[in-house]
Amino acid sequence: MDLATVIGIVLSFGLVVSAILTGSSLVIFISVPSFLIVIGGTIGACLVNYPTNYMLGVIGVMKNTFFHSIQAPGEVIAQFLDFSNRARREGILSLEPVIKEIDDDYLRKGLQLTVDGLEPQTIQEILETEISYLEQRHDAGAELLGVMGALAPAMGMIGTVIGLVQMLQTMSDPSTIGPAMAVALLTTLYGAVLSNLVFNPMAGKLKVRHKQEQLIREMILEGILSISKGENPRIIEEKLNSYISPKDRRQGD
Amino acid sequence: MDLATVIGIVLSFGLVVSAILTGSSLVIFISVPSFLIVIGGTIGACLVNYPTNYMLGVIGVMKNTFFHSIQAPGEVIAQFLDFSNRARREGILSLEPVIKEIDDDYLRKGLQLTVDGLEPQTIQEILETEISYLEQRHDAGAELLGVMGALAPAMGMIGTVIGLVQMLQTMSDPSTIGPAMAVALLTTLYGAVLSNLVFNPMAGKLKVRHKQEQLIREMILEGILSISKGENPRIIEEKLNSYISPKDRRQGD
Amino acid sequence: MDLATVIGIVLSFGLVVSAILTGSSLVIFISVPSFLIVIGGTIGACLVNYPTNYMLGVIGVMKNTFFHSIQAPGEVIAQFLDFSNRARREGILSLEPVIKEIDDDYLRKGLQLTVDGLEPQTIQEILETEISYLEQRHDAGAELLGVMGALAPAMGMIGTVIGLVQMLQTMSDPSTIGPAMAVALLTTLYGAVLSNLVFNPMAGKLKVRHKQEQLIREMILEGILSISKGENPRIIEEKLNSYISPKDRRQGD
Amino acid sequence: MDLATVIGIVLSFGLVVSAILTGSSLVIFISVPSFLIVIGGTIGACLVNYPTNYMLGVIGVMKNTFFHSIQAPGEVIAQFLDFSNRARREGILSLEPVIKEIDDDYLRKGLQLTVDGLEPQTIQEILETEISYLEQRHDAGAELLGVMGALAPAMGMIGTVIGLVQMLQTMSDPSTIGPAMAVALLTTLYGAVLSNLVFNPMAGKLKVRHKQEQLIREMILEGILSISKGENPRIIEEKLNSYISPKDRRQGD
Amino acid sequence: MDLATVIGIVLSFGLVVSAILTGSSLVIFISVPSFLIVIGGTIGACLVNYPTNYMLGVIGVMKNTFFHSIQAPGEVIAQFLDFSNRARREGILSLEPVIKEIDDDYLRKGLQLTVDGLEPQTIQEILETEISYLEQRHDAGAELLGVMGALAPAMGMIGTVIGLVQMLQTMSDPSTIGPAMAVALLTTLYGAVLSNLVFNPMAGKLKVRHKQEQLIREMILEGILSISKGENPRIIEEKLNSYISPKDRRQGD
Repeated sequence: MDLATVIGIVLSFGLVVSAILTGSSLVIFISVPSFLIVIGGTIGACLVNYPTNYMLGVIGVMKNTFFHSIQAPGEVIAQFLDFSNRARREGILSLEPVIKEIDDDYLRKGLQLTVDGLEPQTIQEILETEISYLEQRHDAGAELLGVMGALAPAMGMIGTVIGLVQMLQTMSDPSTIGPAMAVALLTTLYGAVLSNLVFNPMAGKLKVRHKQEQLIREMILEGILSISKGENPRIIEEKLNSYISPKDRRQGD
Repeated sequence: MDLATVIGIVLSFGLVVSAILTGSSLVIFISVPSFLIVIGGTIGACLVNYPTNYMLGVIGVMKNTFFHSIQAPGEVIAQFLDFSNRARREGILSLEPVIKEIDDDYLRKGLQLTVDGLEPQTIQEILETEISYLEQRHDAGAELLGVMGALAPAMGMIGTVIGLVQMLQTMSDPSTIGPAMAVALLTTLYGAVLSNLVFNPMAGKLKVRHKQEQLIREMILEGILSISKGENPRIIEEKLNSYISPKDRRQGD
Repeated sequence: MDLATVIGIVLSFGLVVSAILTGSSLVIFISVPSFLIVIGGTIGACLVNYPTNYMLGVIGVMKNTFFHSIQAPGEVIAQFLDFSNRARREGILSLEPVIKEIDDDYLRKGLQLTVDGLEPQTIQEILETEISYLEQRHDAGAELLGVMGALAPAMGMIGTVIGLVQMLQTMSDPSTIGPAMAVALLTTLYGAVLSNLVFNPMAGKLKVRHKQEQLIREMILEGILSISKGENPRIIEEKLNSYISPKDRRQGD
Repeated sequence: MDLATVIGIVLSFGLVVSAILTGSSLVIFISVPSFLIVIGGTIGACLVNYPTNYMLGVIGVMKNTFFHSIQAPGEVIAQFLDFSNRARREGILSLEPVIKEIDDDYLRKGLQLTVDGLEPQTIQEILETEISYLEQRHDAGAELLGVMGALAPAMGMIGTVIGLVQMLQTMSDPSTIGPAMAVALLTTLYGAVLSNLVFNPMAGKLKVRHKQEQLIREMILEGILSISKGENPRIIEEKLNSYISPKDRRQGD
Repeated sequence: MDLATVIGIVLSFGLVVSAILTGSSLVIFISVPSFLIVIGGTIGACLVNYPTNYMLGVIGVMKNTFFHSIQAPGEVIAQFLDFSNRARREGILSLEPVIKEIDDDYLRKGLQLTVDGLEPQTIQEILETEISYLEQRHDAGAELLGVMGALAPAMGMIGTVIGLVQMLQTMSDPSTIGPAMAVALLTTLYGAVLSNLVFNPMAGKLKVRHKQEQLIREMILEGILSISKGENPRIIEEKLNSYISPKDRRQGD
């Protein structure tokens, strides 16, 4: 998990806690049952929403996306220039030994299909299907966190309504009204904090990382097709440079 | 219905009930008329929204989707490798006896068209039309539950406003205000619970299952087209593997 | 208007009225001026939103959609098998006398173009343009009801704020506060009931019926193109069957 | 501006005013500072949102769209039948003198390109680009009004919160609470009225008129392409009739 | 930053401040801790939402978009007429010296590829990839501001709930209730002002400028393809004129 996530969570939660401490002690904002109804209700509704094995798969994807570092686009370009020069000098089969050393499943599969001599169009179909379903699997992670971000405030509201009904039914002693309503509002607060400071921003980061990863995949697809069509390294470089911002581009020598 | 649905509903409803029990008895949260206005109003508005036979059809689709188990993608790949090997060794007509044993309507129809020797493009058109309208029929189920998830809180709000108007009109005895408002809030609570813990998560699960089912259909379409074009089993395997996550893939032998 | 609409409206309004009657008399919920501001304001804003002739056209479309019964998909298939058998046996011109007996404008136009011997591609262009603009005209009905469903609660809220301002300005006699607020809330109630029990569900039904109608048009388009290309009746049947659910399919004889 | 707009505004504002007059004098609902904060804040935020020259352009487009009358689709068909008959009888160059008398920029440009003998595909590219960017420019008008429709209630809410804070800070004299809150609510009322009775319905009408205009442009494009391909007048009529509802169609003679 | 942005912010903030000053002193609306929780919480959640380097890149894009002036469409047309006339008279290679003087990366790259004699289709692929990823990078800026516009009111609401809980817990002295609630409402006010008068309108302006920039890029793409296909200057002019409004068009001489 990158540093920004940690700093962001410390900053926003720190501000919420210090906003509390300027007005009262922290104790009156802690209620384990209120927390349980918000977080437990959110998880319960997610279990209804997602099949178990699907949810476990999604959690795996999320873990990968948060911790797995993404290749820089510049490296991808350098790598493909190397591949294409080698393929032009020594023939496409000279890439065979390189394939074994590649970690990335997608790149390895694409190169293998090229070395095996499949038609560029068949390679394109296979690799595009792969990108499109990878996308579906990865979107599922952001979607799950988005559902949690919508459920948490709803559970907070349900908890507050329950507290209000109880307070209104037993309003005989006016001095208890204030504290009872204060407790009822805690679930609303928990729901809003979890949704806006945890679930939604994490869904957002998954989406951003997913987009970065997809950019790399699109570049790999373009590069592999160019190699399998035997295109000129200069054109490959121009094509791959189009994916990235001018200031990140590799200067042609 | 998978276990997760049951666990999820028990967990979330259990938490709501225990949140109630920590503050009061459950009795003050039970009101049959309040429940009737929320659930009955939701059903009434759905009857206006959907033609009767359409609604019955949608309920059938929903039942199927919840209880019908979906084939694993790995099995589909194994099955198609088997079909394609047989077709290459013994000719496409050797698939004829296999077709009769197939349960799945879609796969059976696709293979039959292939064995009948239709053009790959005609087969593709027919099977894609089928996927696209199947999709429309299945989306209808999630849509109906989504409409119910939007109507329930609206009916809850209508019930609460009715209660508030009655309370405000007869405010002579202040001691009755609290309990009257408490009762008025119950419809809001029912609407929020039904929407967030039942209707919306179920709509979500229908969507997820529908996506899984569609993945299988897309794989079957790809496989049938490959067989009807007489493609190499190795390419069929590569093509079908593209639909699933690398760790679920069948190792080529 | 189908029976479900009537039952749905009776059920939901009946529940709202009985919810009222369990707590008070119906009289305190009736206020003609409150009703006028909600319904009149909604209509007024619609007049600004839509050109007059457009609005009249949309109302005509809505009336048609509610009352016009839609052909069953199975009948369409039977009809096209009949047409295609006749065209193969006796030539395409033998359909000429049939055309005159057809009620449906779309089917009649399509067959006429086929008998006139236009190219399949020209027929496809003409009939697809027709479907696409028919769609636009029909969507307008659901859109108008959707706009009314959004305006009604807004007008209700405007009425309530007006009532609140008046009550707050003349708060000298506390005993009048309750009834004044009760009256102010009536517009909110009217807006919510009109929107959730009338306008939105009707917009929903228009959309559903529109989708059913469009399915029929797509099937007719497919059938006409197949006839104009002189395709085999068996393939026409397979193609048209793809549009409908397996259990509704005509068994081939 | 068509009559419906005027009637709609008079009707809805009349109802709001008469709703006020049944309960109090109109004076307590008039507050120039409240009005200024809502309308001024809305305009101020729009100035941040849109570059100045862009905003002036958009206002021009809006004025045109409201006042410029749109050609009837039937007239377009009659016109193109005339053009196509003339082109077939006297050659495409015979349209040259007609072009000068045409007011509409789009139609004139399209005919000129046809008479100049450009390839149908080049004409199509040019005219489609024109439609697509015209669309972008016209959508901007509805978008601007939509932004104003979203900002007005937000400014109303900001004004009300300011009033509430001031009232709460100086709550020593209870008799001033009511009137102070009444004044605070006025900005909410102004924001809701401006948004729901003025900005949003006008955005809606712009969208409707824009759609009507676009229908005409699509018909002109179809007609010009048919003429440049030298198609039969009967086919041109069938093609153009597809854009409009059967009951508006010109009867073939 | 254009003048309208400055005028818009001065106007809307000025109106908010003067609305405050008509009712009380400005002092009761200033609370540094309230401001910190809204702005700090918004930034903290953004840090969770976006990877650090991504956020810095986005801020760079935003700065460019606000300050970088966009070429007028009319100039682009004049420039391309000049290029195309020169290319026809003196051959495509005569554009080589012109390329070095061009500031715009996109135009320079496109012309260089043309002079290098690449196939029009390869040029189109490369330049379209560039437009599409430039779009993604620029949309990110408006998206970030949109996320901030959604987070600010949420943080405001969280701050208000915290203040309400504290006030309700210590309600012994009724005279403190008003001022305590007034302070609690300040975060709501800050959140609403930041969102509606700063973040959302700025996101809107980024989108507008981005659209204008993209129009220029589309025109450059069209122009370069026309030159690389050796099209007639008159057709290039017609094609490029299609992108802009008739009244901005260059009169042909």
